[in-house]
Amino acid sequence: MTVRVGVIGVGTIGQDHIRRLTEVIPGGRVVAVTDADTARARDVAARLPGAAVHPSARDLIAAGDVDAVLVASWGEAHEEQVLAAIGAGKPVFCEKPLAPTGDACLRIIDAEVAAGRRLVQVGFMRRYDAGYRALKAALDDGSIGAPLLMHCAHRNPSVPPYGFSTEMIISDSAVHEMDLVRWLFDDEIVAANVFKPRRSSRAGNGLQDPLIIQFEMASGILVDDEVFANAGYGYDIRGEIVGESGTVALADSGQVIRRSAGQHGGRVPAGWRERFSRAYDAELRSWLAAAAQRTSAGPGSWDGYAAAAVTGACVEALHTGDRIAVSLPGRPGFYPTAG
Amino acid sequence: MTVRVGVIGVGTIGQDHIRRLTEVIPGGRVVAVTDADTARARDVAARLPGAAVHPSARDLIAAGDVDAVLVASWGEAHEEQVLAAIGAGKPVFCEKPLAPTGDACLRIIDAEVAAGRRLVQVGFMRRYDAGYRALKAALDDGSIGAPLLMHCAHRNPSVPPYGFSTEMIISDSAVHEMDLVRWLFDDEIVAANVFKPRRSSRAGNGLQDPLIIQFEMASGILVDDEVFANAGYGYDIRGEIVGESGTVALADSGQVIRRSAGQHGGRVPAGWRERFSRAYDAELRSWLAAAAQRTSAGPGSWDGYAAAAVTGACVEALHTGDRIAVSLPGRPGFYPTAG
Amino acid sequence: MTVRVGVIGVGTIGQDHIRRLTEVIPGGRVVAVTDADTARARDVAARLPGAAVHPSARDLIAAGDVDAVLVASWGEAHEEQVLAAIGAGKPVFCEKPLAPTGDACLRIIDAEVAAGRRLVQVGFMRRYDAGYRALKAALDDGSIGAPLLMHCAHRNPSVPPYGFSTEMIISDSAVHEMDLVRWLFDDEIVAANVFKPRRSSRAGNGLQDPLIIQFEMASGILVDDEVFANAGYGYDIRGEIVGESGTVALADSGQVIRRSAGQHGGRVPAGWRERFSRAYDAELRSWLAAAAQRTSAGPGSWDGYAAAAVTGACVEALHTGDRIAVSLPGRPGFYPTAG
Amino acid sequence: MTVRVGVIGVGTIGQDHIRRLTEVIPGGRVVAVTDADTARARDVAARLPGAAVHPSARDLIAAGDVDAVLVASWGEAHEEQVLAAIGAGKPVFCEKPLAPTGDACLRIIDAEVAAGRRLVQVGFMRRYDAGYRALKAALDDGSIGAPLLMHCAHRNPSVPPYGFSTEMIISDSAVHEMDLVRWLFDDEIVAANVFKPRRSSRAGNGLQDPLIIQFEMASGILVDDEVFANAGYGYDIRGEIVGESGTVALADSGQVIRRSAGQHGGRVPAGWRERFSRAYDAELRSWLAAAAQRTSAGPGSWDGYAAAAVTGACVEALHTGDRIAVSLPGRPGFYPTAG
Repeated sequence: MTVRVGVIGVGTIGQDHIRRLTEVIPGGRVVAVTDADTARARDVAARLPGAAVHPSARDLIAAGDVDAVLVASWGEAHEEQVLAAIGAGKPVFCEKPLAPTGDACLRIIDAEVAAGRRLVQVGFMRRYDAGYRALKAALDDGSIGAPLLMHCAHRNPSVPPYGFSTEMIISDSAVHEMDLVRWLFDDEIVAANVFKPRRSSRAGNGLQDPLIIQFEMASGILVDDEVFANAGYGYDIRGEIVGESGTVALADSGQVIRRSAGQHGGRVPAGWRERFSRAYDAELRSWLAAAAQRTSAGPGSWDGYAAAAVTGACVEALHTGDRIAVSLPGRPGFYPTAG
Repeated sequence: MTVRVGVIGVGTIGQDHIRRLTEVIPGGRVVAVTDADTARARDVAARLPGAAVHPSARDLIAAGDVDAVLVASWGEAHEEQVLAAIGAGKPVFCEKPLAPTGDACLRIIDAEVAAGRRLVQVGFMRRYDAGYRALKAALDDGSIGAPLLMHCAHRNPSVPPYGFSTEMIISDSAVHEMDLVRWLFDDEIVAANVFKPRRSSRAGNGLQDPLIIQFEMASGILVDDEVFANAGYGYDIRGEIVGESGTVALADSGQVIRRSAGQHGGRVPAGWRERFSRAYDAELRSWLAAAAQRTSAGPGSWDGYAAAAVTGACVEALHTGDRIAVSLPGRPGFYPTAG
Repeated sequence: MTVRVGVIGVGTIGQDHIRRLTEVIPGGRVVAVTDADTARARDVAARLPGAAVHPSARDLIAAGDVDAVLVASWGEAHEEQVLAAIGAGKPVFCEKPLAPTGDACLRIIDAEVAAGRRLVQVGFMRRYDAGYRALKAALDDGSIGAPLLMHCAHRNPSVPPYGFSTEMIISDSAVHEMDLVRWLFDDEIVAANVFKPRRSSRAGNGLQDPLIIQFEMASGILVDDEVFANAGYGYDIRGEIVGESGTVALADSGQVIRRSAGQHGGRVPAGWRERFSRAYDAELRSWLAAAAQRTSAGPGSWDGYAAAAVTGACVEALHTGDRIAVSLPGRPGFYPTAG
Repeated sequence: MTVRVGVIGVGTIGQDHIRRLTEVIPGGRVVAVTDADTARARDVAARLPGAAVHPSARDLIAAGDVDAVLVASWGEAHEEQVLAAIGAGKPVFCEKPLAPTGDACLRIIDAEVAAGRRLVQVGFMRRYDAGYRALKAALDDGSIGAPLLMHCAHRNPSVPPYGFSTEMIISDSAVHEMDLVRWLFDDEIVAANVFKPRRSSRAGNGLQDPLIIQFEMASGILVDDEVFANAGYGYDIRGEIVGESGTVALADSGQVIRRSAGQHGGRVPAGWRERFSRAYDAELRSWLAAAAQRTSAGPGSWDGYAAAAVTGACVEALHTGDRIAVSLPGRPGFYPTAG
């Protein structure tokens, strides 16, 4: 069965997902698009044989030939669109954030629980990265013993000098580690600290860059996350889990080692697209497989909610300098554990 | 346009390609199968909605609803099947070897040249491996200068104690390096030497394992290839090109580094499937894209012929202990250079 | 000129230094020993041609044929012995700690300043390690830009289940990083935080192991130090400095890479002796060279004092859970900066 | 006991050994020097308290206060000087080559056997390198099984464009691997092949650079040695032993890993001095310890002879293109095996 997909939002990310559904992954077909920019929606549809342009997300979601919905609009619109998809009983893939506030996420959770089956997947693609999956496999095979702490680093080559705030280092970058550590350890984050190292002179106007964010898990596992938006040298994602009898860390991802000019070494990825390209493919492949069964799997509404709650705590920790506890309501039994 | 594919030979490799065409890659559909073992053909077809079982390769190739042909039968049958596909004007993917002898390969070349367009792709999947592609990119960007020599190692964990001959170390294993170095250096192999190191006590009855095979390229580049069928510890494929100002080598392919029990280190692949899984996907993806244009790209009939000729020279070198020259007729202008 | 050395304390560490002075390094000779255990002193002296046994440290320091003094007694005795050496105008090498309290260290500083020249070297051997020296060289050559933060890990395979307290993780282990970061960054530590991750079940009775210690430097550089006394898998010392345009980290120290049983990898040192053996040699070589000039170089009294003050702050942070500021009096102009 | 050393030849290498005996290693003292350039001998002696300048090697060797002799003169003079030292019953360290011809080496062997005890150590310092010692330890601990073959690379950054012949690539560079593989495998080389890859355009007038040299050991182990005098990028010494169940290879020797400008990597040594500095220290330390016992250990006359014989075979193989057998007379029982 070919899953007929409607795409809401056809900017850079939406178009990238359309490319995947069209050229990379079998089993789906983009039959409908919509965008706040109607001309752009028409342009994109023109390159997709048989795809309709809908005047609104609401119309697209309601369309009889749309089996599943992919939300790549801006964050403020997510809640309404995801709720509409749930209401229509259609599987929905929603780019992060699930919704901008914890309350909005809780409304989505309520709707999904009421619908009686998983319909939402949130775009935390790192869970599908081969490196992180090997990390989790090594953790789960017991060879390093019980996990005690983890060191993460999330380094971007640079961000635009204006329009990127310190809060966005948390909500756009560190949010990935928030989800990952919940998944790796099958555990919730219960508190966060934010520390401010010496500021890089390359950071734009007013930006506190880098940050050290510390997550405390319910089990006591302590995670430190260096988040550096202007690391300069490349896009470098690091992670090492320290267990009772050993550690396991992400390996460097280069394909070849060069020896020249007095150095031996390999390539650091230039950006997130290079680093996580295959993870994006795998996440959508997984979503499509579940959508063919009229459901969703992978990171879901509860994970989107937890990320929103922890993001809020981190922003408060950034502003106050205090350790901020995260208190989640009980996880509905409807949802499986994160791991 | 969906390419309708007919598959000849549905043993392990044929079924693996069917899985790729069905679950991994978009743009193709398996509509027909055939196999010397008719029951097996029926079983496989039963899991493919709408796929027909043909009584012979000839029938399958002639079928009106078959756009392109994938040959995964045994080597002796390749010549006839590939010639039939060319005769029918249908793109054909043929697992290596293209044909068991150089003469048979030349007959295929003649037929393809007569057909007036590329129709044949040979299954040298390593050209699609990310590691080798990065090796070629590093070579081509000039950063190590002109290439002078290359060191290769091709280590299998083990081969069955009976039924695997020393000649097969050349024809089944080293054949991959023969094609690769032709492609990497865009150059032909003009002579081969085979050396016999101390024999592993783990090698089966009579097997001379490992071998060191030396290839001389027309440009003078010298390649040594350690081919070790019973290396024991894993499936380990190594390659380092030495240039006038530096070297470039395949990196280890593991995803994570573990530190435990006094050691730090990573995983060596368990077998060729783990190591080259993505390369197989990419080769078939590439074939399908060309087949949609009613042609073929990538390694072709000329490459299949060159591999057969060099294999013959190596086997003679093995038996005589002499350096054996390889003399190819002029490459038809019809074919592009190997690189 | 051969420096005639008197050694106070001939336990494990004292004997190791005697071995170095006798077998490894030229330019010195052990002419006198003393120890609270007189029999042990006599045994050691018996293997050193012409070495005298003195009844007390006081006598040894005063002896006319002793040019320089090496203090390897227990920490409580250091202050008196170092002061006596300064009083006698003799260069003195003192194992860490310089003295158990900041006040005691300040008294040593006063005496040394009054003596008018550097006479004291403290046993912070890591400053002489080739890895850390390369780290400092990379920092100083500007290739990673201004340093912003540093990640350290200090992992011991294990400590005895009894008799090793959580405070000792700070005073015996983390004290090395305290000195190192002061030297690497030529900067003082102004505050410390101590965090308690999930406790290892392998840690002895009551031990909080591992700890995460955070140092704030006057410049704003933030250092996190994972100190894990029972890491189990080996003695693993890690360090990565993150600068404005790149990072530099200690490399793994193994000599060979093994490929066997599905793994590739190298050795982690078994203990501090294996890891820092050459650093100990180099520190004593450096001390002897300065002693021949009747002075001392390398880490000195001020560094010993700073380490004592930061140790005190960390212990307070451990007990209170608060960030504890470190306030040092002004560094006497007599002492050069730490770097 | 302090060993009183006389040094014959105080050029670069002689002075470097004098520095070691004076500043790096205890247990020896340079009491006498001589050199064909008398002014140079006087200059060097002037910096060594109490050292005499002798008019000839013969005088120096005969001097009553010289306990042991270090020969760092040019190769043509070695035979006479080593024979004189043996005649005087004094331990002698001789830089490679022991003597320029196999026959000369055999005369030294005869004299040493007649003297009744080991007196000669040849300057094959790589046997004292920590990397090679770890390689041998890994081989000897059985973890890779019986050795079958070895890959070596010996890359120099460059050699002078004139005055360095292709034969010198064998006699000055590859001679190190000749000795090493004999020691690693405790086995003799029985034949050699020399292959000529594409020539580097950076090689000086007429130089065939690089070479691939192949050594066959008596046990059947096959060694290939890439010797590249103008590798350009650094001084890079590589070695991988392939055994029946695994491999072991020299690790990269850098102290730190830098991440900058899109790359991660480490340093390649700039030259042999940087790479083998500690091996030179250790070889002399070992010689001095044996000399204090009035004997020699480590690589000896037989090893010097074997290196001369294999060098001759390689030069013949270079000129003829043929595989050249090496035939050694039986090793005198007086000498232990190489390993």
